[in-house]
Amino acid sequence: MIPNPLRDPRDRRLPRVPEPCALVVFGITGDLARKKLLPAVYDLANRGLLPTNFALLGFARRDWGDTEFAELARDAIRQHARTPWREEVWERLAGSVHFVQGSFDDDTAFDELAGALGELEGSHGIGGNAAFYLSIPPSMFPVVLKQMQRTGMAENTPGRWRRVVVEKPFGTDLASSRELNALVDSVFSADDVFRIDHYLGKETVQNLLALRFANSLFEPIWNGHHVDSVQITMAEDVGIGGRASFYEKTGAARDVLQNHLLQLLALTAMEEPVEFSAEEIRTEKLKVLRAVSLPEDLATSAIRGQYEQGWLAGQRAKGYRQEDGVADDSTTETYAAVRLGVETRRWAGVPFYLRAGKRLPRRVTEIALVFKRAPHLPFADTDTEELGNNQLVVRVQPDEGVTLKFGSKVPGSVMEVRDVSMDFLYGEQFTETSPEAYERLLLDVLLGDATLFPRNAEVEASWAVIDPLEEFWAGSDPEPYRAGEWGPRAADAMLAAEGRRWRRP
Amino acid sequence: MIPNPLRDPRDRRLPRVPEPCALVVFGITGDLARKKLLPAVYDLANRGLLPTNFALLGFARRDWGDTEFAELARDAIRQHARTPWREEVWERLAGSVHFVQGSFDDDTAFDELAGALGELEGSHGIGGNAAFYLSIPPSMFPVVLKQMQRTGMAENTPGRWRRVVVEKPFGTDLASSRELNALVDSVFSADDVFRIDHYLGKETVQNLLALRFANSLFEPIWNGHHVDSVQITMAEDVGIGGRASFYEKTGAARDVLQNHLLQLLALTAMEEPVEFSAEEIRTEKLKVLRAVSLPEDLATSAIRGQYEQGWLAGQRAKGYRQEDGVADDSTTETYAAVRLGVETRRWAGVPFYLRAGKRLPRRVTEIALVFKRAPHLPFADTDTEELGNNQLVVRVQPDEGVTLKFGSKVPGSVMEVRDVSMDFLYGEQFTETSPEAYERLLLDVLLGDATLFPRNAEVEASWAVIDPLEEFWAGSDPEPYRAGEWGPRAADAMLAAEGRRWRRP
Repeated sequence: MIPNPLRDPRDRRLPRVPEPCALVVFGITGDLARKKLLPAVYDLANRGLLPTNFALLGFARRDWGDTEFAELARDAIRQHARTPWREEVWERLAGSVHFVQGSFDDDTAFDELAGALGELEGSHGIGGNAAFYLSIPPSMFPVVLKQMQRTGMAENTPGRWRRVVVEKPFGTDLASSRELNALVDSVFSADDVFRIDHYLGKETVQNLLALRFANSLFEPIWNGHHVDSVQITMAEDVGIGGRASFYEKTGAARDVLQNHLLQLLALTAMEEPVEFSAEEIRTEKLKVLRAVSLPEDLATSAIRGQYEQGWLAGQRAKGYRQEDGVADDSTTETYAAVRLGVETRRWAGVPFYLRAGKRLPRRVTEIALVFKRAPHLPFADTDTEELGNNQLVVRVQPDEGVTLKFGSKVPGSVMEVRDVSMDFLYGEQFTETSPEAYERLLLDVLLGDATLFPRNAEVEASWAVIDPLEEFWAGSDPEPYRAGEWGPRAADAMLAAEGRRWRRP
Repeated sequence: MIPNPLRDPRDRRLPRVPEPCALVVFGITGDLARKKLLPAVYDLANRGLLPTNFALLGFARRDWGDTEFAELARDAIRQHARTPWREEVWERLAGSVHFVQGSFDDDTAFDELAGALGELEGSHGIGGNAAFYLSIPPSMFPVVLKQMQRTGMAENTPGRWRRVVVEKPFGTDLASSRELNALVDSVFSADDVFRIDHYLGKETVQNLLALRFANSLFEPIWNGHHVDSVQITMAEDVGIGGRASFYEKTGAARDVLQNHLLQLLALTAMEEPVEFSAEEIRTEKLKVLRAVSLPEDLATSAIRGQYEQGWLAGQRAKGYRQEDGVADDSTTETYAAVRLGVETRRWAGVPFYLRAGKRLPRRVTEIALVFKRAPHLPFADTDTEELGNNQLVVRVQPDEGVTLKFGSKVPGSVMEVRDVSMDFLYGEQFTETSPEAYERLLLDVLLGDATLFPRNAEVEASWAVIDPLEEFWAGSDPEPYRAGEWGPRAADAMLAAEGRRWRRP
C-alpha cells in the first residue's frame, strides 16, 4: 500500500521522549499539583521519559524561592509518586526547578516568568518550548491568559512550541464553555490547547479502543442489532469531602456526567477512526456526541438525587445537606441518571443509561453492554429460568479489566443454564504496570499528542446534552436516597418501566 | 404459544428417577464394568437417582455366585466411585445384585437369565423393564443378541421396555458398522439402542450446546463469515498401555477420530435444534456429518503418525513399535490429523482441522474456533505485531471451561496491542460437581433419554468420512514423531501451507 501522505507515519510502539522543554504550572501549591502533577513529573523522569533539557517552573502567590519550592516538590513526590524513590533522579530534577512568585494580576511577575523562560533557553537548553498548566480555578483563566498574551508567552514562533493545559470544569454550561473556548482559542491556537479529562488517561479507557478495533470478535455484535442497552456507571462511595463550595454550584451532572461519562459514551459508541491519531479519534467522538439525543419525557428519564444520612461500610454517613459548607435546603444533586439515545445507524433505538453518584455502596466505574436475549431458546422454559442477558463489561476502575457474562450449563444430570462470568484482569495478565493517568497525559502534552484530550467542539457538544437537563431540573428538589444505597428509587423505576434493571456492579 | 403436541413437554430441570428396572451387564468382570459401570451405579444410588425397585444382574463365564459378585462390586465401588462411601447405600444395592454364570453360546445360561428377570419382577418389582449393557467385544455381539432374541428378552411388550447399550467400536468401517447396526436393529427397535460415546457424557460437551444456543453473544460470530478455521484436538500423553492387540488393528483414526472427534465437530457445526431433545439434536448432528467433505489432496491434508522413542515429563518413553504386543514393522497410526470441510451455508470454506494422538506432550481435548483477523486495523502496523487471531476455546478436559483470546492494550504510554485471555473454569464457578460421563449416560439409558447417544445413521456417516482415509493410508508407513512432541512435521506443514498453525494447548 502506498502510504497516504496525510497519515501519521510514526512508529507509535517506541516510547518517545519529548523535545527539550519547560513545564510551567500555575497554582503549583494547590492539591492537584502536589498530589498528581509533581509526582507525575518525577515518575516520567524516573522512567527516562523526560528530555535531558527540561525545566519545571512553579508560579504561585506564596513568598517562596527555588529552595522552598524544591522542598515542597520533594515532599509531594516522596508521598505520592508511583515509581520508587531514586535520589539521583530527584537530584537531576531538583536542579531544574524554579519558582516565580506573584499574583495573577501582577504584570511584573509575568514579565519575570517570561524572562525566566528566556533565560532557561540559554541555561537549560529548553529550546523555547513550554507547556503552561492552568491548575487554577476557571475564574482565573481570563486574567492569566491575558497576561500570557501580553508577554508573548503564548506565541508559537518557528522552531518553538507553546501549549496550554486546561483542567475541567470547562465552563458550567454551553454558553460559558463557548466563552471559555473562545478566550483560550484567542490566545493559543486550537491545536495547542490540551483539555485534561483524566479519565481518558486511564488504561482501560484506551483499552476500550484496542478492544473494539484490534479484535474481530466484538465488532460484529457491537451494535443495535445485538445490544439491548448500554449502562455507563461512575459510582463513588465518598461524599464531597472538603469541596462543598465547588460542589454546591456544580452537582453530579456538571461534575462528571458532562465530561467523564459522555466521553466514555463517545468511546463506546464511536465508529472506527481512519487511523489511531488525535485528529481522527476526536472526529469520531464528536460525531457521537453530536448524535446524542435526550428522551422526550425528562420527568421519568432524567433523575437527580441527593444523599441523605445513611450507613456505608459499617459507618454512619452524613446526609449531603449536613455536610460542612452545604446549605440546609441545598437542591444540588449528588446523583444523576439519564437515558440517552445515539441517533446513528449503529445505535438508533438502543438506550444508553448513564448514572453517576456519590455515597453509593462502592467505588466503581464501568461500561456494560447488555445484549439482547437470544431470539429463541431451544430449551424448556424451566431450563433457562436463571439465565439473564449476556453482558460485556469494561471495568475502568478499580480492578481494571473486562468481564463477559453468559449462560452455561449447570453441572449435573439435567439441562439447566445459569449465568457465569469470565474475567480478564489487567493487573493479572501484564507484568507492565499502568502509568497514572496524569503521568500519561502530561507526557502526551509534552509530546504534543492530543489523542486523549477532548476538542473544544466535543466539550460544547457535551454541554448541549447537559443544558436541557439542568434547565429541566432547575428549582426542583432532587430525589432523596440514603447514603450507602444505589441511588433514588426513581432511577430504578426509569429502567423498570422499560423492563430493565441497573447492574449491581 | 400453543404447545406443539409433537414436542416434549416435560420439565427437564427436575432430576428424574427411572422407572423400576433391572440393569443387566454382559462382561461384568471386565475392566469397563469394574472401573466405570459399577461405580456409576453406586454413585447414582448414592444420589438417589436409582428407582427403589432396582436390580443389577451380572453375566459372565466365571464360576461365581451372588456373593462373589457382590464382593467384586464392593471392591470396584470403594476404589472407583466418585461419591463418598455410605454403607447403607451399598447395603441396599448389595441386596439387589445377582450373578448369572455362563458363556455366550450357552442356551441354559440365557434361559436362566430370562428366568431371573422374570423372578425379579415379582421379588424386586422391576416391572419387567431391563437395560442390557454389552460390555463385551463386538465379535461377541451376534451370539449374545441372538440369545436375547431367542429367549424373548429383547422384546418390548406393552407396559415394559427393553433397551440395549452398545460400546464403541461400532464396527471398523462403513460396511461392518452397517452390518452391526442391521444386526442390533433386527433384535431391538432403533429407539431402544443406546450407543455409548462417553465423550458425549462429559459436561463440557453438553455445555457447548448451552453456550451456543442459550446465549446471544456467540451465535452472530459462529459461522464462516467470522471464523477462519476450527481446530479440534484430542491429545493424550499416555501410550497404548496394555491394549496392543486392540490398538494394532485399530489405530488413532478408528479409535477416536471416527467417534469422539467427529461428534465434537458435529456439535460445533450443527444448526439450532427445534428443541433440546434426542430426536432433534441427533437430526442436526447427522446433517453435519453428512455435510462433511474430505480434502481433494489427501497426501497433504490427511496425515498419520506413529510415535518413536522420546521423552515425556522427564521420563524416557518407548516407541510404539517397541511396545509389548506391537509388531516391529507395525504401520498402525498413533496420530491422525485431517482437514475436513463442512459443506453448509454456515461453514463452507472453513477448514475443520482434527487431530488426535498418543504420547503427545500433554493430555488435553479442546475445540478452538479461530476467528478471522479484523479486516482493517486503524493502528500502526508495529502496534499490533504481537496480535494473533481471536480465539474461542472450549476445553473438554482437563480443566473444563471456556477461554477467550483477544488483543488488549499493553499498559504503558504507547499503543501496543498484545494477546490476552480470559477464562471461565467450570470447577470454579459452580459448587455443583460434574457427574462422571458414565454416571450421566447410564442414568439416561434407564430414563430412556437418547439425546447424548449417536444414532446408527450418525455412526455410518462418520465411517463414510473415515473409510477413504483408511483406504488412502493402507499399506503406507505413518510419519514418525518423537514421543513428547506435538505429532509429525507433516501435520504442521499441512497448516503452514495455508498460513495457519496448530494451537499449543
